[in-house]
Amino acid sequence: MEPKYQLMRTLRCKDINRPGVLGNLTTTIGKAGGNIGTIRTVRLGHTFIIRDLDIFVDDDEHLNNVVNAVKAIEGVTLLDVIDEVLQLHRGGKIKMVNTFEVKSTNILRKIYTPGVAEVCLRIAKDPSLKNIYTSISRFVAIVTDGSRVLGLGNIGPAAAMPVMEGKAALLHQLVGLGGIPILLDTNDTEATIATVRNIAPTFGGIQLEDIASPRCFDIYARLRDELAIPVMHDDQQGTAVVTLAAIITACKNTGRDIKTAKIGQIGLGASGLVIAETLFKFTGNPVLGTARSEASLKRHEARGGIPSTLTEIMQKADIVVGCSGVKGLIDPKTVRKGQMIFALTNPEPEIDPDVAIKHGAALATDGRSVNNLLCFPGIWKGTFDAGASRINNDMLVAAALAIAEYTPENELMPYILDQDVHRAVTHAVARAAVKTGVARNSLVDDYFVNS
Amino acid sequence: MEPKYQLMRTLRCKDINRPGVLGNLTTTIGKAGGNIGTIRTVRLGHTFIIRDLDIFVDDDEHLNNVVNAVKAIEGVTLLDVIDEVLQLHRGGKIKMVNTFEVKSTNILRKIYTPGVAEVCLRIAKDPSLKNIYTSISRFVAIVTDGSRVLGLGNIGPAAAMPVMEGKAALLHQLVGLGGIPILLDTNDTEATIATVRNIAPTFGGIQLEDIASPRCFDIYARLRDELAIPVMHDDQQGTAVVTLAAIITACKNTGRDIKTAKIGQIGLGASGLVIAETLFKFTGNPVLGTARSEASLKRHEARGGIPSTLTEIMQKADIVVGCSGVKGLIDPKTVRKGQMIFALTNPEPEIDPDVAIKHGAALATDGRSVNNLLCFPGIWKGTFDAGASRINNDMLVAAALAIAEYTPENELMPYILDQDVHRAVTHAVARAAVKTGVARNSLVDDYFVNS
Repeated sequence: MEPKYQLMRTLRCKDINRPGVLGNLTTTIGKAGGNIGTIRTVRLGHTFIIRDLDIFVDDDEHLNNVVNAVKAIEGVTLLDVIDEVLQLHRGGKIKMVNTFEVKSTNILRKIYTPGVAEVCLRIAKDPSLKNIYTSISRFVAIVTDGSRVLGLGNIGPAAAMPVMEGKAALLHQLVGLGGIPILLDTNDTEATIATVRNIAPTFGGIQLEDIASPRCFDIYARLRDELAIPVMHDDQQGTAVVTLAAIITACKNTGRDIKTAKIGQIGLGASGLVIAETLFKFTGNPVLGTARSEASLKRHEARGGIPSTLTEIMQKADIVVGCSGVKGLIDPKTVRKGQMIFALTNPEPEIDPDVAIKHGAALATDGRSVNNLLCFPGIWKGTFDAGASRINNDMLVAAALAIAEYTPENELMPYILDQDVHRAVTHAVARAAVKTGVARNSLVDDYFVNS
Repeated sequence: MEPKYQLMRTLRCKDINRPGVLGNLTTTIGKAGGNIGTIRTVRLGHTFIIRDLDIFVDDDEHLNNVVNAVKAIEGVTLLDVIDEVLQLHRGGKIKMVNTFEVKSTNILRKIYTPGVAEVCLRIAKDPSLKNIYTSISRFVAIVTDGSRVLGLGNIGPAAAMPVMEGKAALLHQLVGLGGIPILLDTNDTEATIATVRNIAPTFGGIQLEDIASPRCFDIYARLRDELAIPVMHDDQQGTAVVTLAAIITACKNTGRDIKTAKIGQIGLGASGLVIAETLFKFTGNPVLGTARSEASLKRHEARGGIPSTLTEIMQKADIVVGCSGVKGLIDPKTVRKGQMIFALTNPEPEIDPDVAIKHGAALATDGRSVNNLLCFPGIWKGTFDAGASRINNDMLVAAALAIAEYTPENELMPYILDQDVHRAVTHAVARAAVKTGVARNSLVDDYFVNS
């Protein structure tokens, strides 16, 4: 079955300038099941207002229903249905550019032959100079085979490109680094490892993305151990960092002590397994874990976890984390009073947070609020600033603590586009790298002031 | 032996504002063997002028000699010796950026989750949409193992990066495409082919660079035949195109008919072999070829060439092309009156052009004038504009003819940074792709007007 997904469209509406018309419009869209995002005023006339309303609908039929409902409203003219998502994607979301103009022979001869030869020979003599005189140490490879994308499943490498470009675009937007998507035409573990190893000299680090488990575990572990540059798998380490941050904040908000809370992990794929492991390392308490496959349970046990069942987790755990991939897996009747539930499966969670709260949960959230985007840009910037040879557990925990620290009161996560958060993560990670002895650079005192 | 190379430095000189001082300065530098490039006025005072003089010297000792000579000039104060080459390379010459700002949740939700999912699924259903909604069809991989860089030899992948970044910077500067350097940590033919094949979905085309022969022949031919996207090897096809263009222009300038001229090729490596083959295809006349290795001569014969010797070529050929890698290989005494000599070995040619002219050559040039940079950007832009599945011989010849057409009268090659040349190559290549049936797009009538 094709996964269900939401379409995003913009309705451009011309409303008669009269109280109640916008209320009528938004109520009508809501009644037709449309979700409303941003509303922007496009033009303000004496007698009319033109507004763009971003809406989310399930599919084309649903869109049609919403459009027809809007058309029937008195005082509202639907001028256009705009597909801004496709418009923004036209031509791609990232581009490789020169850092300065090459407009004269004078510059050309310095950045190309004959000038460039001296730089090449300097690097040949002292390879560490590549970190100064090339872009290598600012490039992160964003590697995927498209075998497990978002909630979309195995859509292949080319169809995964818009997600990889999104990550790359945000890596530059948020911390100024260059993300280079690498789309793999293989699903073979050994071929993937060999390919990434063969192109590794190009990059300062490797970020694996959306590679199916269990293959991703070997690929990550082997590359991490074999390459001289840092490696992370966003679905493993990235998700673990933001989940840890969310749980730290949730415990703070509810007055619970994370070190004594019983934690249960439902689903032990790429994310679930490493979330459980990270929580175990952080709290010192083994995490109850459940999964459909025997192999997953074995992996969980090997990483210090306790194999369990869904029933037992719902009965015993104070904190329940769901990464099962199964919509509605958690029966609301099994929710216990005061439980904290992180139902992270996208796009449809194990339990609707509102329903969980209604059944007594002290706190409940879904995967939309817990976003990897909060951690990976700062992790890479901090790692590169420190010249770290690897991304270790201390650096990941430092990132989680920084995110928790920058979360506004009574919120679960910071605002994703808040530059301060990414700067805080960057500094925390760089500091942790220096402290744990994996940094090449000793950070000068004013690093944290000026950067 | 380490290859000899030229250092490029900028001397910042404060001269007394008096006639003859600059003449004295430049004469002194020239006498010390320094080559002078651009001279820029930095500051103009009542009694003094500060100027930046770009100079080329052989090595540090030579630089020292020039500097001491300049210091000894009366009326000249050497303020600084600036290394602009290194300054320009600091931090790298290229960067990956987002094509638009992501500053609001509104945009974020369109280019990332949840909006991006719809784009992914559209591409999964119709893979050709990747050419519209991603950057794939604007990305050219610039692939090297650093085994044969410029005149520098086997310096390895990381040390080759400044050259790859230079190519990428110019690809964007000249035609707006994105060059993605890929540095290979392998010198194995099969591993190279497998690696490039495995990452091919990321790119609209593959440009091989500076890979040693004979390995490069197999790598190019196999990838060209196996991949669904166009492949070129700059040292093979690129050099052949600019050399063909130069020879066409030289024949025009000297009133010779290229179709009846006898052509000899000295050196049958990556460049020489394909130059000979391209000239054979263009003129219909087999090219005399000589090389040190028996295998090279066999390859030349297999591509329609006639194995020959240096002596025979100098005796019989009207046009002599040298890509031997051997400085001074051509004995000036063997030059015949009216011969055209393209001594392309970098950085030191088979014969000094001035010496060749003195010994009767009708025309002589070296590798500095015949630069691949004139063709590869336009070849890629034309190929992409046409949506061509491959780069065939007709497209390469079209590029050469366009370069020849845009060469100013009595010159051998156009100005490298002239945008008109690159536009002309682009259009010629796109037209040839459509004509030969390898284009996906049918170019609309106004393509050549508007683009």
